[in-house]
Amino acid sequence: MDRYAEHRQIARTLGVDAVALVPGPNFARLFHQDFHSHERPLVVLIPAEGAPAALVPNLELRSFDLLKFEGEVFDWRDQTGYSDAFAALARHMPLRSVAVEGQVMRVFVHHAMALAWPGLKIVDAERQISGLRLHKSAEEVAALQEAINLSERALQRTLDQVRLGQTEKDIERILTLALFAEGAEEQSFGPIVAAGDNSARPHAHARADYAVKAGDALLLDFGGKWGGFCADITRTVFLDHASDEAQAVYDTVLRANLAGHAVTRPGVTAHDIDDAVISVLEASPFADRIRTKTGHGLGRDVHEAPYIMRGNPQVMEPGMVFTNEPGLYKIGAFGVRIEDDMLVTAEGSLSLTRFPKDLIILR
Amino acid sequence: MDRYAEHRQIARTLGVDAVALVPGPNFARLFHQDFHSHERPLVVLIPAEGAPAALVPNLELRSFDLLKFEGEVFDWRDQTGYSDAFAALARHMPLRSVAVEGQVMRVFVHHAMALAWPGLKIVDAERQISGLRLHKSAEEVAALQEAINLSERALQRTLDQVRLGQTEKDIERILTLALFAEGAEEQSFGPIVAAGDNSARPHAHARADYAVKAGDALLLDFGGKWGGFCADITRTVFLDHASDEAQAVYDTVLRANLAGHAVTRPGVTAHDIDDAVISVLEASPFADRIRTKTGHGLGRDVHEAPYIMRGNPQVMEPGMVFTNEPGLYKIGAFGVRIEDDMLVTAEGSLSLTRFPKDLIILR
Repeated sequence: MDRYAEHRQIARTLGVDAVALVPGPNFARLFHQDFHSHERPLVVLIPAEGAPAALVPNLELRSFDLLKFEGEVFDWRDQTGYSDAFAALARHMPLRSVAVEGQVMRVFVHHAMALAWPGLKIVDAERQISGLRLHKSAEEVAALQEAINLSERALQRTLDQVRLGQTEKDIERILTLALFAEGAEEQSFGPIVAAGDNSARPHAHARADYAVKAGDALLLDFGGKWGGFCADITRTVFLDHASDEAQAVYDTVLRANLAGHAVTRPGVTAHDIDDAVISVLEASPFADRIRTKTGHGLGRDVHEAPYIMRGNPQVMEPGMVFTNEPGLYKIGAFGVRIEDDMLVTAEGSLSLTRFPKDLIILR
Repeated sequence: MDRYAEHRQIARTLGVDAVALVPGPNFARLFHQDFHSHERPLVVLIPAEGAPAALVPNLELRSFDLLKFEGEVFDWRDQTGYSDAFAALARHMPLRSVAVEGQVMRVFVHHAMALAWPGLKIVDAERQISGLRLHKSAEEVAALQEAINLSERALQRTLDQVRLGQTEKDIERILTLALFAEGAEEQSFGPIVAAGDNSARPHAHARADYAVKAGDALLLDFGGKWGGFCADITRTVFLDHASDEAQAVYDTVLRANLAGHAVTRPGVTAHDIDDAVISVLEASPFADRIRTKTGHGLGRDVHEAPYIMRGNPQVMEPGMVFTNEPGLYKIGAFGVRIEDDMLVTAEGSLSLTRFPKDLIILR
């Protein structure tokens, strides 16, 4: 059993000599372990044929040992830098071309490789390499489900503690504590806690100087990680009361979300799902408030393929997981988003998120 | 007052047409706001002369507005991709060369820029751009101090709860919860909680299947963030008892740490500090257990300049902050590290970390 078979296949398909992996979600999937890279390059090279090789910071060697790596390891120390180790790696494994993860590898590693292998063709194979994460195994789905379950418990804990007069930052803090109290390993991303006009910014930052007040929408977009997998959930609630406009907007977003659930099954495309969802929003009186696509894949990374948008021909298959998160955003007033994490099954789809979606008014 | 004066100066010094910033610590320092970039490029271009310009994902526009950006903004949508926006930006601001943050910018942005400006020379100016963060203002030091204070309270809370038979993962969880309970915004990095033989790995990962036992070293390396700034503290304690060897090693590491405190003042170099610290370890019977340099700068990023190592001629100046973290690591047995966060002052130095360093035995 060659644990590099998929990566070698990518190298052959792209016609490059090797695939280079750096710490991050693809590395973690392959080795069941990750590293904080910080300022220290750590690179694994997987050639189309033959043994892999790696460049590893000396102080990580004893942790790297745990991977039971099959190939030659070239280590380097902070005091002498990494260029000699790259040069030795290049002599060991001559390359004319290499496929890299464009959204993971940083420029300083790119430059070090270009220097070590003069004339090296560096191909951004983010789509192919991260594409190996498209289909989640049963074990991976179980980890996602646990991440989502604990995140839902944290949301309930948070809503139980929200009071008029708290700032967005206060509520963000309550939510963060609740996530860890419920067992999160870390947060999937810095949570979005946005009320009133701030909820109309899809990626708002919580404010320390805005106290939530009666009539506000309160949007919470957050998630905990468990077993290396990310939850990503949004619910929008209202404080004290919801205006007629707010209720109509909420109802529209919910219908769009439900349309996404209804259309998802193996064989439809990412385009089809986005089209079904966005069409509901477009047919409403609030079409000018559309600012985002339906969603994105979810797994070891909180944003990954498949991206659920019109124009994406990706065919949905069992084991794929994505967010279904339509929203409507009225600049300067308020926004509503409802986000579920969906699994494509053999028969259709399943929402791994089960937190209620009826309009909630906190009193 | 031109808030880009320092960046323009870097462009002129390097002889490049502009500096490109992406979300991250340099971006956050300049704009007092950060963005999660994920799969969506967001780039600010600061030319040596004239107005800046930016490429921004459409759904971030209302958040980007808060920066009160002075220049032209080219937005793009997921559905159409970012290449047209890059091309429009390139027509608006022709460039032959650009300086980038090599440890922050990822390869997909590098490739998008190379495509938009054919023949573009992309210079890794990590050292110069991140070098703007070398000197911390009084306000920044106050944020660091708060991050450190809350981290120390979390450490005390954790040590109060450690019991024989808990796993490393159990203790990691206690520590994480304590950090957030004490007010951390997020963790500076995934904490290191390592006992017994695992403590001999400088960057160990906590194990779910190892229960701490009498005689173990327990190394905790962790930190909370506050106001955007990172604490980074290590203490090594012993459970039930410490062997004579463990006590001798602890004493040696502590003397090395104190030597680092003693030598630090304006005018000495990073080389001098590392030399003073490592010399203590080298003169001990445990010289073969040295695996790391003394430390690294600390600020918005948990690893940043100045790197405290032999060969680094960086002259220390008031306002610089770095970790003083000597350690000794006996493979397969145990490791000891003691880490303080140090501020260079006009007179000498100050340890922002004040948690006791006497050998602690938890009973």
